Order: sequence, then structure tokens, then C-alpha cells
Amino acid sequence: MVRNQERRAALADAGIRVLATEGARGLTHRAVDAAAGTPRGTASNYFATRADLIAALVQRIGERLTPDPAVSALLRHRQPGREVFGDYVRDIVRRLMADPHVTLALFELRLEAARRPDVAGALAEWRRRSFEDDVAFNRTAGLPGGAVEIALFHFAVDGLVFDRLTQPLDDGLDIDDAVDALVSRLLP
Amino acid sequence: MVRNQERRAALADAGIRVLATEGARGLTHRAVDAAAGTPRGTASNYFATRADLIAALVQRIGERLTPDPAVSALLRHRQPGREVFGDYVRDIVRRLMADPHVTLALFELRLEAARRPDVAGALAEWRRRSFEDDVAFNRTAGLPGGAVEIALFHFAVDGLVFDRLTQPLDDGLDIDDAVDALVSRLLP
Repeated sequence: MVRNQERRAALADAGIRVLATEGARGLTHRAVDAAAGTPRGTASNYFATRADLIAALVQRIGERLTPDPAVSALLRHRQPGREVFGDYVRDIVRRLMADPHVTLALFELRLEAARRPDVAGALAEWRRRSFEDDVAFNRTAGLPGGAVEIALFHFAVDGLVFDRLTQPLDDGLDIDDAVDALVSRLLP
Repeated sequence: MVRNQERRAALADAGIRVLATEGARGLTHRAVDAAAGTPRGTASNYFATRADLIAALVQRIGERLTPDPAVSALLRHRQPGREVFGDYVRDIVRRLMADPHVTLALFELRLEAARRPDVAGALAEWRRRSFEDDVAFNRTAGLPGGAVEIALFHFAVDGLVFDRLTQPLDDGLDIDDAVDALVSRLLP
């Protein structure tokens, strides 16, 4: 059972590499087996349809972007306020930049969602829940920033990370300065 | 000659549709001919290599995102300030949303730039010049916002438009409200 879960995660990680390095159109069961080094047919055994494969990739992307519990524990013990909120945003950007394949794979899936309703459906539930969790977290933790601010940070951080992981603007801003500027301005 | 230019633009428009509806990996000379309804070999006659095709698409995307001269004239005659700058941003968002294929094609090319240095090169010069032009325009026109603010608006607007053209967050924000919130907060 554990063995199966490990194999499943390894196949999903291979799918993430395929998305990041070949784009959404390159994502096939065969490409996943090739990237994972598994015999042909393995990916199909785990994920019967392309929709199953996409759902597994969305789940795995979520796992790989999960905060480090040690970082969260440190932040949770500080006095809530703008500075702590800023550190949460910095930690999100750090995670997105540290794992470029995961972040690029997510952008690929989101673009694919504009073309394929099944992909849009797979993303919708996950994104809805993440967004609601973020809003609830800020409220419960007494952090500044409600739904509007969290949406604005989503947009700005997505655009910043998209820029930095592709062909970056020559704007002279280092990524930490950009995040600091966003935090200081977007919070009420 | 004019005929040639029209054909060239029509082929580039077909390439933009291919990028938006099939992704960067679907972009081949053959797919462009199929989308344009031209005999096979036509796209190759106009754009000898894939790099030539990409360069033509970048140029055509720039043309199709060019501001409407009537809108620019109206804005130019108003007293420069935060409100006018906000209206420029609103006009940019309006253009990006009005022509989803162009905007999605640009995101596809930017993701492809993370994988292919030739695509990164084709985008780099165009993006560098656009960014410098934006900064120079604001300075000359006496509008608020320097290089830092223009970079922040690039990130936030990219993220907002990416969200709205793919699988949008259920954040209850209408796009005009989101733009207003960004303008009121990101300007110094």
C-alpha cells in the first residue's frame, strides 16, 4: 500500500516534469512512463484516464507547495500583524521559486484550463478551497488582509513568479524587493 | 507588396489562434497553414524557420495590443495624475481581456521561453523595449509611477488577466474593482 502510494507520487512527479518541460500538450500516459522510467502501461494502471492523471497532478502540486511545518510554527508564534503577513507572502514566493517545475506545471495546467473544461473542473475545486482556506486562516490568526487583499496578492505573486521563471523583465528589482514593495502597498 | 503584408499578418493571426487553442507545442508551420486555410507550404514561404515564425508572432501580438489612437488622444489631453494613470491601466486590461487569443498566445510563448532559449531571445528584446517605453512615457507625460511601479503593475495585471482568462478565482471581485484596487494601492 505504501509502495503503491510512493509509486503514485513518483508518477505524478514525472507528470509535473513533463508539463514543465514539454507543455500541457506533451502530457500523455506514455510521456509520464518515459519520464518516470516505468514500463509502458504503468501510468495507465494508476490513472485510467487523462482526467484521472490531471486530478493526480493537481493533488501532487498541492502537496509539493504545502508550507514547511517548521516555518509555519515559527510564524504562528509571532505577534500577528503586517510584518508576519509579509513573511507568509515571502514564504509562498520562496516555495514557488524553489520548485520551478511545480510552478511552471501549474501555469501550464491553468492555461490548459482555458481550452479544456475537464481541466478547468479539476483546478476549480482545489483553487476554491485554497482561496477559502487562505481567507479563513488570515481571519482566525488575526492577520491583516481579507478576501480582496488575498485575491490581489494572488494576482501580483502569480505575475511576479511567472515573470521570474520565464523571460524576466529587466526592471532592476530583485525578487525580495518586489515582494517587499507588494506587501507594503497591497495591505490596507 | 501590400498583398504580401496582408497575407503575412493573416498567417501570424492564424499562428496566434494555434498558440491559444493548442498551446506552444502545437505551433508548427503545418498547423498555421491549416488554421489560416492556406495551402501547405505557405507559412514556410513566409517564415523559413520556427524562430522566424516566433519572431513574427511576437511582432503581431505587439501590433494587436497597440493602444487605440483615439483612446490615447483622449488620455493625453487630460491633466496628468493618478486618475489618468489609472485609466491607462484600465485601458491595458481592457485590451488584454478583449482579445483573449492574443493574451493567451503571449502567455504560451512566455512559458515556452522557459524551455527554449530562442523563444526567450525573441521575447526579451520586445519586452525590454516595451518596458523602457512605458517608463519613459510616464516620465515625459508627467504621470505618477516610475520603473518600480510599472514593474509591479506588470506583475499584478499579468496575474489578474491570467486568472480571468483561465479558471478564475471565486473572489467576488469584478475585474474593474480589482483594477481599481490595484491602482489605488500600487501607486506611491
